[in-house]
Amino acid sequence: MHTSIIDQIRRTTPLVHCITNYVTVNDVANVLLAIGARPIMADDPAEAEEITALCAGLCINIGTLNARTIPSMLLAGKHARALGHPIVLDPVGAGASKLRTETALQILDEVRPAVVRGNISEIRTLAVGSGSTQGVDASAADAVTEENLAEAAAFVRGFAARTGCIAAVTGAIDLVSDGTDCYAVRNGRPEMGQVTGTGCQLSALLAAALASAPVAPLSAVTETAALMGIAGELARARMEEHDGNASYRTRIIDAICCMTAQELADHAKITSV
Amino acid sequence: MHTSIIDQIRRTTPLVHCITNYVTVNDVANVLLAIGARPIMADDPAEAEEITALCAGLCINIGTLNARTIPSMLLAGKHARALGHPIVLDPVGAGASKLRTETALQILDEVRPAVVRGNISEIRTLAVGSGSTQGVDASAADAVTEENLAEAAAFVRGFAARTGCIAAVTGAIDLVSDGTDCYAVRNGRPEMGQVTGTGCQLSALLAAALASAPVAPLSAVTETAALMGIAGELARARMEEHDGNASYRTRIIDAICCMTAQELADHAKITSV
Amino acid sequence: MHTSIIDQIRRTTPLVHCITNYVTVNDVANVLLAIGARPIMADDPAEAEEITALCAGLCINIGTLNARTIPSMLLAGKHARALGHPIVLDPVGAGASKLRTETALQILDEVRPAVVRGNISEIRTLAVGSGSTQGVDASAADAVTEENLAEAAAFVRGFAARTGCIAAVTGAIDLVSDGTDCYAVRNGRPEMGQVTGTGCQLSALLAAALASAPVAPLSAVTETAALMGIAGELARARMEEHDGNASYRTRIIDAICCMTAQELADHAKITSV
Repeated sequence: MHTSIIDQIRRTTPLVHCITNYVTVNDVANVLLAIGARPIMADDPAEAEEITALCAGLCINIGTLNARTIPSMLLAGKHARALGHPIVLDPVGAGASKLRTETALQILDEVRPAVVRGNISEIRTLAVGSGSTQGVDASAADAVTEENLAEAAAFVRGFAARTGCIAAVTGAIDLVSDGTDCYAVRNGRPEMGQVTGTGCQLSALLAAALASAPVAPLSAVTETAALMGIAGELARARMEEHDGNASYRTRIIDAICCMTAQELADHAKITSV
Repeated sequence: MHTSIIDQIRRTTPLVHCITNYVTVNDVANVLLAIGARPIMADDPAEAEEITALCAGLCINIGTLNARTIPSMLLAGKHARALGHPIVLDPVGAGASKLRTETALQILDEVRPAVVRGNISEIRTLAVGSGSTQGVDASAADAVTEENLAEAAAFVRGFAARTGCIAAVTGAIDLVSDGTDCYAVRNGRPEMGQVTGTGCQLSALLAAALASAPVAPLSAVTETAALMGIAGELARARMEEHDGNASYRTRIIDAICCMTAQELADHAKITSV
Repeated sequence: MHTSIIDQIRRTTPLVHCITNYVTVNDVANVLLAIGARPIMADDPAEAEEITALCAGLCINIGTLNARTIPSMLLAGKHARALGHPIVLDPVGAGASKLRTETALQILDEVRPAVVRGNISEIRTLAVGSGSTQGVDASAADAVTEENLAEAAAFVRGFAARTGCIAAVTGAIDLVSDGTDCYAVRNGRPEMGQVTGTGCQLSALLAAALASAPVAPLSAVTETAALMGIAGELARARMEEHDGNASYRTRIIDAICCMTAQELADHAKITSV
């Protein structure tokens, strides 16, 4: 019988090493605690390898990358790889600067993460080796819709096959592929875009999910993407008068903290494409 | 007819580059999303110019400045200036250390921001070229009151005239001047001082406001200062039993997220001085 | 008559210099404001001494330490020491990497803080000069329980005596000792471990408490440890349906903001051991 990824994480309480941006780092730590994992943030080259060795998984998020943290990402990444730890790469803003694009490509090439999670513009940038992302959000022109779903799925499947990663491209419709199978996840709410860092949170949750050593990694990633979207749906339903994006932020993490395996199973909208 | 700065920002959804302190950065990102703008944080010299070129405005906040980010502030600032982007300088803690005072003065001189927003002690420090700010709050001795309002307005007007910036000096009474006209804003609540970063949030909102290319920049700055104060008033009115400064923090951003142009117009207390 | 540490802090409103990690820094700032103190964060070597000289106390927290901030910790620490300011060391993750263990030991040796606050695994690491902390949480094997309380108290008392610091070892039962007396604090809730940074918050509050120059430092530290636990208890009692760790985070700081000296006195569970 299928074990919910929620139960899997809560049972194994994996320690997850995060080298992540300082904008959303507090939410990343709290969302890992919410799901039942344990975060540790450490980004200096002098301890990056030692810290990652203690952990069961690594999340590398390049938002607010800098000259000191890029070497840490590579050191931790290669060491985690050598140890067989699952690694998630979140190429925040790839396409917005050469530094981001090249760093993300270097990590992809030298670290070979288990999962790359980004918006469609970031992943397109990585696919062609350059790009012009507008900030940290996906371009409207790139958006995955019901109309272009087959084409987008082919792109995501191809990207996953070429890189050897599970690609998780999130947006109004999420697409997750290991290069062979591809799933669409139709959970989430557009208002999640008004809360900074829901993507960063998902990336960290994916590291926790894979660190909990699920039998089927592709399902685990897909299910965790659904979980994040469902948290946005449940949190939205709990909004009260005068609540705005700051309350929504709190309610999303709360929803993950309170979520049961049954809720996840009941609300997940996952289809094969 | 006058267009509200709220509508103006929501219509143009400007991308705002923030080089800002790590204490309040999450709130700065979420408040930009709340008002309808889009944040991007990037502070490494290797990408500072490229990122700012993508954006419509820049907010430089020197709280937690360091040897790596100061060059980024200058690079981004000069590039944004060359591109004609509006720049806001928030001289957090100018007067508290030579590093802060000198960095703020250098940015003022070399970048020539459109707006300088600070508390009265910080702006007095910049006016005389040195200072002794007690931490990051204004000294009680400096406070703008009804009694010293004319004198304070003359100071702010003179500072704006000499620097060529719009000066926005915020406190119990805010004073905003372009060197010719000067407005007093009597919105806000004293309890806002118990939430870290409401000043940082306002600085970022000012960058968004100017990046939305309003017809009248001085009005836009004044109106945005009122907006921040009104958010504090509305949030205060929504406080419940056992709520403290952490709930207040959430409610302030929520109030900005939910604020309508009509609410802003109805509550703004702006007078010429 | 005994003055509550709450009244003492609110009366003196001490300015507290924090060199602290970027994960929980916003909560650290807001909790200092909640208790009535004033935070200033500054971590560059070029201003570390000047900033700390303005303040009444210093909190050094080594979470997310790096090559640039370690020298700042030492510079600020030695200067604060020379000025007679109380210093709190929070050795986050000591034992998890050589960098953390050695940095914490160096600060302990060269700065000689007034208080070291950590979990039992971190303090055991400092006691033996090396360790193998699992991340930033205490090992289950180390936990202080009713069963091993006498032994743990002897350890904490000995550590305090050898280092000349007040040792505050927090967990399910907190132990606070100056090397002679030792107190157990039985406040708090296990759910506090699901909120990142409640330990960091306590460390900053301890710096504020000592900066308010209480007559009896050991009592002040013990009482402040109780205060943090009571905030967790009160916040827990105010949780509503669908609230999770993110709401809990907000409610804990709110509880500190609203806490009265009477509430602290009524709920504190402090015994001599």
